[in-house]
Amino acid sequence: MSGQQAPAVKKQRTQPSYELLYHPHIPGRGEFIRLAFEAAGVPYTDVANEDSENGYAKVQATCMGDDSGTEGNPPVFSPPALRIAGAGRGGNALIISQTPNCLIFLGDKLGLAGGGGEEEKLWVQQVALTALDLNNEVHDTHHPIGVSLYYEDQKEESLKKARDVRENRLPKFFSYFSRMLSWNAAKAQHTKLVGDSLTYADTTVWQVLDGLYFAFPKEMQARQAEFPELLDTFYKSVREELKTYLESSRRLKYSEGVFRSYPELDRPS
Amino acid sequence: MSGQQAPAVKKQRTQPSYELLYHPHIPGRGEFIRLAFEAAGVPYTDVANEDSENGYAKVQATCMGDDSGTEGNPPVFSPPALRIAGAGRGGNALIISQTPNCLIFLGDKLGLAGGGGEEEKLWVQQVALTALDLNNEVHDTHHPIGVSLYYEDQKEESLKKARDVRENRLPKFFSYFSRMLSWNAAKAQHTKLVGDSLTYADTTVWQVLDGLYFAFPKEMQARQAEFPELLDTFYKSVREELKTYLESSRRLKYSEGVFRSYPELDRPS
Repeated sequence: MSGQQAPAVKKQRTQPSYELLYHPHIPGRGEFIRLAFEAAGVPYTDVANEDSENGYAKVQATCMGDDSGTEGNPPVFSPPALRIAGAGRGGNALIISQTPNCLIFLGDKLGLAGGGGEEEKLWVQQVALTALDLNNEVHDTHHPIGVSLYYEDQKEESLKKARDVRENRLPKFFSYFSRMLSWNAAKAQHTKLVGDSLTYADTTVWQVLDGLYFAFPKEMQARQAEFPELLDTFYKSVREELKTYLESSRRLKYSEGVFRSYPELDRPS
Repeated sequence: MSGQQAPAVKKQRTQPSYELLYHPHIPGRGEFIRLAFEAAGVPYTDVANEDSENGYAKVQATCMGDDSGTEGNPPVFSPPALRIAGAGRGGNALIISQTPNCLIFLGDKLGLAGGGGEEEKLWVQQVALTALDLNNEVHDTHHPIGVSLYYEDQKEESLKKARDVRENRLPKFFSYFSRMLSWNAAKAQHTKLVGDSLTYADTTVWQVLDGLYFAFPKEMQARQAEFPELLDTFYKSVREELKTYLESSRRLKYSEGVFRSYPELDRPS
């Protein structure tokens, strides 16, 4: 038996290989998923950004166009999606899509779903889902009429939509997140939304707030005194937890995604 | 000991007591949750519709306004929510909100999450989430500028938004659901989206299609030849499974909710 090679199976990964399939160069909806990996300190491959030559073609093949499923998985409606090698049936990859679906899946695997069992898991889920609804509404401030039309072709409507979102929707969502923080304050003094450790509810709400600071700086500045626990204590505390990532080159700049800098859509001076 | 009364604990329910907290009189987002109960044949209380005197006040107390949580549960952003007596901590009720969150919870409890383990559960979830995204886009065809404004005050914008949804978004979503049916056809010949038994992916997609038949009858008629598996085989098959409920008085009529009949927003003749 001496001299025999160790069987290949010994080379098996001790950790799943997570691949994020998303558009390159923008934070977008992929950012909610990146933040989960980064907060947990778990490695992942950002396919389109890490392989500038072939990465986006891989994303497109799985997530866009008229695909009818890949590697035994059903078709994907649109990016982001996750591919986890070996986690599917018969040794195939598991491919799942829809931002909340990816977060719910990762919340469990990465320990970001709260430490309080089923009940806390459901609350983390409902807060993250609400933050993603807000994310959609913010997207619609520059695309109220059609996703496939240019902003310039729906600018008049954007001015009206942005005003409604700033004046009515932001305070409604901010009030809810603030009440969550107050409700949970006995456990985490306004630094966590559910339970006493960081969850994907925190990272998801944080990312929307951070995007809003980019898109509507004047509006956010004006709201700060109204929602201090959310826009000061919570926002800064989560930013501190994500500091290493946020200062790295992996953190992509806002540009032409969900959060855009159109000063005319912000609160008038 | 003779003559002693049986202790109260013996009266304990053998089945959880599910309460749906939602606005009265409209199907709305509550309908996705009603369909799950009805498809599973599991009893539930539709609080606002069954108690016309006090029901809606109960919904409002838990789900609307500036509540800071009820019975140990965190605040709710907006209806629908589920209240399950005795399922929370220390014998309290469990209250959860957000339509997808309620469906994911019930999918597990009511056997509507597919029979294929974790993997199928994730796919059911992602299909239902996508159908709920479409539901939101359909809502925005009559409210593209502001939820709190009247339709009449955003009619010009609605005409543009509805056109984009009819011409671009419906075919994109219908194509995806059709590809799901084809992908799954080996198991269920275009009558189920995931696996071989009814799931909340089926009931959720079906409800959106049914609402679209009400809101955009001419558009749907015109699309039927393009998506026969979805708009004919699947739609009729699920309707048949839900027949008893749909013919009952519990099924509420469409009126001023997500799906509205504004002929000017439908496809021109």
